[in-house]
Amino acid sequence: MRIGILTSGGDAPGLNAVIRGAVLKGDKMYNQEFVGFRSGWRGVIEEELLPLGRHEVRGISKQGGTILGTSRTNPFEGNGGPDRIREVLERNDIESIIAIGGEGTLAAARRLSDAGLPIVGVPKTIDNDISATDYTFGFDTAVQIATDAMDRLRTTGDAHGRCMIAEVMGRHVGWIALHSGMAAGAHAILIPEQKTSMDQIIEWVTSASDRGRAPLVVVSEGFLLDTMDDTHHERGLDAFGRPRLGGIGEMLAPMIEERTGIETRATTLGHIQRGGTPTSYDRVLATRLGMSVLELARTKQWGKMVALRGTDIITVPFEDALGQLKTVPQHRYDEARVLFG
Amino acid sequence: MRIGILTSGGDAPGLNAVIRGAVLKGDKMYNQEFVGFRSGWRGVIEEELLPLGRHEVRGISKQGGTILGTSRTNPFEGNGGPDRIREVLERNDIESIIAIGGEGTLAAARRLSDAGLPIVGVPKTIDNDISATDYTFGFDTAVQIATDAMDRLRTTGDAHGRCMIAEVMGRHVGWIALHSGMAAGAHAILIPEQKTSMDQIIEWVTSASDRGRAPLVVVSEGFLLDTMDDTHHERGLDAFGRPRLGGIGEMLAPMIEERTGIETRATTLGHIQRGGTPTSYDRVLATRLGMSVLELARTKQWGKMVALRGTDIITVPFEDALGQLKTVPQHRYDEARVLFG
Amino acid sequence: MRIGILTSGGDAPGLNAVIRGAVLKGDKMYNQEFVGFRSGWRGVIEEELLPLGRHEVRGISKQGGTILGTSRTNPFEGNGGPDRIREVLERNDIESIIAIGGEGTLAAARRLSDAGLPIVGVPKTIDNDISATDYTFGFDTAVQIATDAMDRLRTTGDAHGRCMIAEVMGRHVGWIALHSGMAAGAHAILIPEQKTSMDQIIEWVTSASDRGRAPLVVVSEGFLLDTMDDTHHERGLDAFGRPRLGGIGEMLAPMIEERTGIETRATTLGHIQRGGTPTSYDRVLATRLGMSVLELARTKQWGKMVALRGTDIITVPFEDALGQLKTVPQHRYDEARVLFG
Amino acid sequence: MRIGILTSGGDAPGLNAVIRGAVLKGDKMYNQEFVGFRSGWRGVIEEELLPLGRHEVRGISKQGGTILGTSRTNPFEGNGGPDRIREVLERNDIESIIAIGGEGTLAAARRLSDAGLPIVGVPKTIDNDISATDYTFGFDTAVQIATDAMDRLRTTGDAHGRCMIAEVMGRHVGWIALHSGMAAGAHAILIPEQKTSMDQIIEWVTSASDRGRAPLVVVSEGFLLDTMDDTHHERGLDAFGRPRLGGIGEMLAPMIEERTGIETRATTLGHIQRGGTPTSYDRVLATRLGMSVLELARTKQWGKMVALRGTDIITVPFEDALGQLKTVPQHRYDEARVLFG
Repeated sequence: MRIGILTSGGDAPGLNAVIRGAVLKGDKMYNQEFVGFRSGWRGVIEEELLPLGRHEVRGISKQGGTILGTSRTNPFEGNGGPDRIREVLERNDIESIIAIGGEGTLAAARRLSDAGLPIVGVPKTIDNDISATDYTFGFDTAVQIATDAMDRLRTTGDAHGRCMIAEVMGRHVGWIALHSGMAAGAHAILIPEQKTSMDQIIEWVTSASDRGRAPLVVVSEGFLLDTMDDTHHERGLDAFGRPRLGGIGEMLAPMIEERTGIETRATTLGHIQRGGTPTSYDRVLATRLGMSVLELARTKQWGKMVALRGTDIITVPFEDALGQLKTVPQHRYDEARVLFG
Repeated sequence: MRIGILTSGGDAPGLNAVIRGAVLKGDKMYNQEFVGFRSGWRGVIEEELLPLGRHEVRGISKQGGTILGTSRTNPFEGNGGPDRIREVLERNDIESIIAIGGEGTLAAARRLSDAGLPIVGVPKTIDNDISATDYTFGFDTAVQIATDAMDRLRTTGDAHGRCMIAEVMGRHVGWIALHSGMAAGAHAILIPEQKTSMDQIIEWVTSASDRGRAPLVVVSEGFLLDTMDDTHHERGLDAFGRPRLGGIGEMLAPMIEERTGIETRATTLGHIQRGGTPTSYDRVLATRLGMSVLELARTKQWGKMVALRGTDIITVPFEDALGQLKTVPQHRYDEARVLFG
Repeated sequence: MRIGILTSGGDAPGLNAVIRGAVLKGDKMYNQEFVGFRSGWRGVIEEELLPLGRHEVRGISKQGGTILGTSRTNPFEGNGGPDRIREVLERNDIESIIAIGGEGTLAAARRLSDAGLPIVGVPKTIDNDISATDYTFGFDTAVQIATDAMDRLRTTGDAHGRCMIAEVMGRHVGWIALHSGMAAGAHAILIPEQKTSMDQIIEWVTSASDRGRAPLVVVSEGFLLDTMDDTHHERGLDAFGRPRLGGIGEMLAPMIEERTGIETRATTLGHIQRGGTPTSYDRVLATRLGMSVLELARTKQWGKMVALRGTDIITVPFEDALGQLKTVPQHRYDEARVLFG
Repeated sequence: MRIGILTSGGDAPGLNAVIRGAVLKGDKMYNQEFVGFRSGWRGVIEEELLPLGRHEVRGISKQGGTILGTSRTNPFEGNGGPDRIREVLERNDIESIIAIGGEGTLAAARRLSDAGLPIVGVPKTIDNDISATDYTFGFDTAVQIATDAMDRLRTTGDAHGRCMIAEVMGRHVGWIALHSGMAAGAHAILIPEQKTSMDQIIEWVTSASDRGRAPLVVVSEGFLLDTMDDTHHERGLDAFGRPRLGGIGEMLAPMIEERTGIETRATTLGHIQRGGTPTSYDRVLATRLGMSVLELARTKQWGKMVALRGTDIITVPFEDALGQLKTVPQHRYDEARVLFG
């Protein structure tokens, strides 16, 4: 009986290392066979299978993306659902599914598991916002890419005496902004968990500028000024309730420039944060998760996923990862905030 | 008598290596003294001087930005002009000026030189659009940063089966797009020198997609569709003559997506292309230019600048760098175009 | 009353971020003043002090090395000892010492603390071999550098069909080898904790080669073949008890080549593993440790140090870090070993 | 009729980009078919062919190594020679050979060409020592890797007040040392073209140390002290005529330490200089060379190779690349030497 693997949702550096870890361990220790589903749940529902053996995973742990492809297909939509999936598994001699995905994927996996399907999981999110795991793979790479970009922005900011704004990923949580901003020595870090006033931002920017520094402001894409309500991003509105096109960084730039008189430029790092070669940290974490989830599947611990706790890979039920986003706690924000301004 | 150095216009990786090259050589070979002007021509006009000796240039060749600061101040504006500059030089015991800057700076330097001021120059432009030199420092770094970003974009494009658009610098010329696109294996490279039809772009994108590739489109910020006239960028208009906010990449994304049905995402690399640690290529080039321009100043070859020809540093009059931008010639575009689609 | 900071022992990427974290937090929250001791304990004993304020720590968190300098001076040797140190502290208005160093430094700090001196500490080791902390700063950077180097070695190995050996740091523990080897997909990882037979190594190398791979062997500098006793490294002997000049990697290369007939090349990564820009992971960890140790000093918790536990910075007594090296546990080695061959 | 491609000699970053450039252009413009020879001339003589179409070259321009494999096999040795090669070409419907290799390969290619075989070439050498081309691909990548390593070595040297020696590739020429040393701000660059006395080296090291710098010495593997004769390296002798094991860097370290009293450490960069992802510079150069050599083959310009002159790809006869190594000219050394000490 084969094990099927799928990757679902946005890609994250390390996906291939998870796949490789599971396949290599299964192949070497148990002669286990595998099959890949193309493009996440879509490959399950549409029965699009890919060969997935030792040859296919050769040398992939350092590749970004996922060799299986990914999509945001919901397994309950369209022709999907537990019965369809059970049918596909049986017809293709597949005993169980290893689902690698974010909160949506894990929630779906849980529902399918509750419906009796043999599913185990690996949590995946660039944003590091899944509870029940200390870190998710891909996060470290995203932080490193953002930090490298900020190191570059700082020198050009210094040369011109400009305020530089770097907008990083993080629609609901500020982990990437917090870590990359701390690493890059930002003068302000603006995250979704902490609505902040324009006055406060101006104070930080001015303080840095007064000491002769070119201010660096790091902002999560989901950050809101205290004058904005939670629906501004969904509705595409700026701080004044007007339609806006750019991201929050581009919205803040002219506001800061106008209030401080300091030339201000925003850069949206965008998709480069989630692609390319994973850091060694993410490769090790992902490889370990892949090898561990293989054990979950082999020992038929359906409804469970692997996670990082300290330096250990542990097992937790899907529900531990669901329900509540892992946001930046107040003490971590306060810790970083000391360095602002 | 001291030599004054200034950096003017946008920053470029390698500025500090030029400064260091000139100062170290002058100090070691001739006991020459130097002084820096703060923030380009503004520092000359406003008589803002910075100490610039061996100590100040220590370890700076690998730093992005410029230790002298830069600005876009025109030396003829405001209180400026030849008389004011001559007065500042005399009062501060400065024999000559080494001006490191782009076309605007070199044009101003030429006018000042024609007015009898002792000026020599080093050409600087990220965009590589200055005639009379094979390459300018900073260009190689910008291409490397853009290429690294595209390597990342490709893996995320592949994972999702998306068309990825990377918008790079280049308002008037397409050198950065040409080189980074070639290095990254782009399926289309769109540059200001080559107005292109949407039909052609769609053909390239579709061709790549049909072969199972996630299309990568590289576009210079100054590119125009054949339906756009040269004033669209200045007037901030999109392909349909409507006001637009984002850059050309963001304008193209929905057009491509609509025509091809392929999910399309644009990333504007922005300011990260010009900051941070220079490549070794740029450090070597910049160091050599700095040492050579020092000789120009020492031998009083006013009105001249240094340039790269093959592997040699040569001397050319300012006017050789002026008048005509160095655009991507047709044969270089044709060479690259073979690989499109 | 001022706080004195020193860095001692081998340098590690992140030292400057620790210093900056402590100084910035102290300056901003408490108006605390600081002073640096030059070159570790030597600066204490010889009363060589450096100014250490906000200006000095500007922009240093991304710099490798340590702005204070470091040495392996033992504070009890020569003119040192508790009385001398107490005298220096008093004369210079220094209330306490923050000592950033490895096991030797922490052991000395403990003895001084036992003798009544006001000392707190931050553990530092590239090798990640200090108990009581999940990770030490500098380790992640070393692993990343080693992994990058191995990614390069693999392509040249593949091109020539060679076996490549990468010797990494780790005299007593194999953490760097374990993590970088796992990240790079090594076919064998040889660490000091696991004496291994040449037969076993040959089996792994041959197995990889038989599958058409160019074998990659990662070896800690302190690894011993099962035929070598623990004193071979100290005595500079090779596997046959003969004097040797190169490291263990260079010793293994001809042995593997002779037994397998596969051309084999060894590279000793050496000092590049500990220098240069820290990863974002190390910058964040080091910054947090620096801010936390400042609190230890402010609250006079002499004899204690900060450490990482999961995602938290905790406080532990010096003795928790001493006595026993944190070696690679059997289960972590077994986990990685599955992938060998 | 197909075109056969081979890569021969040591690998260099960019080989795959050359292959891809030739194959893609041939496929797209002329429907030309290709075949690869496995492991250089060995694949020709032993008739080991690899499929080489559009699919095989997909995404390879950023990969180090060579997908065809390489070896140092001489086409005239063993069963080789013109007749054997002609036979293999005919039997496999191969019209011509594109040989990508260094001086040895080009010399063999010339002999084969003189014997009437249809061969064109692309010069390849990490060392940049081939006449008739301004630069060879792979050189820029090697310089960048060496420079990055030196940036790291400097911070650890500074932290400890040590003299750091970096030994780089270059058995007969000093180009890598010259460029990386210049980029890294070395205090001495020792190259094969310039025998130098120990007294001179000590003067440079001492001068840097006296100014408070940690001296950085860059040395080509083929450098000789003025007391060594040209056979010391071949005979494996040190400066005193004694057998030695390590490279020249390791030989110099204790000599410098003894004479200056400054702790000195040598690092041999070794194989990491030639592997891994090529820089964008090398990718562009290699791609252009690959596209151009395809034209040479299509137009039957046997006995010729492509080369870089300024910004142009030109055509030269094989003999222009042979006979004389391109060494570092005196004026380039003198230019760099100004910065020593």
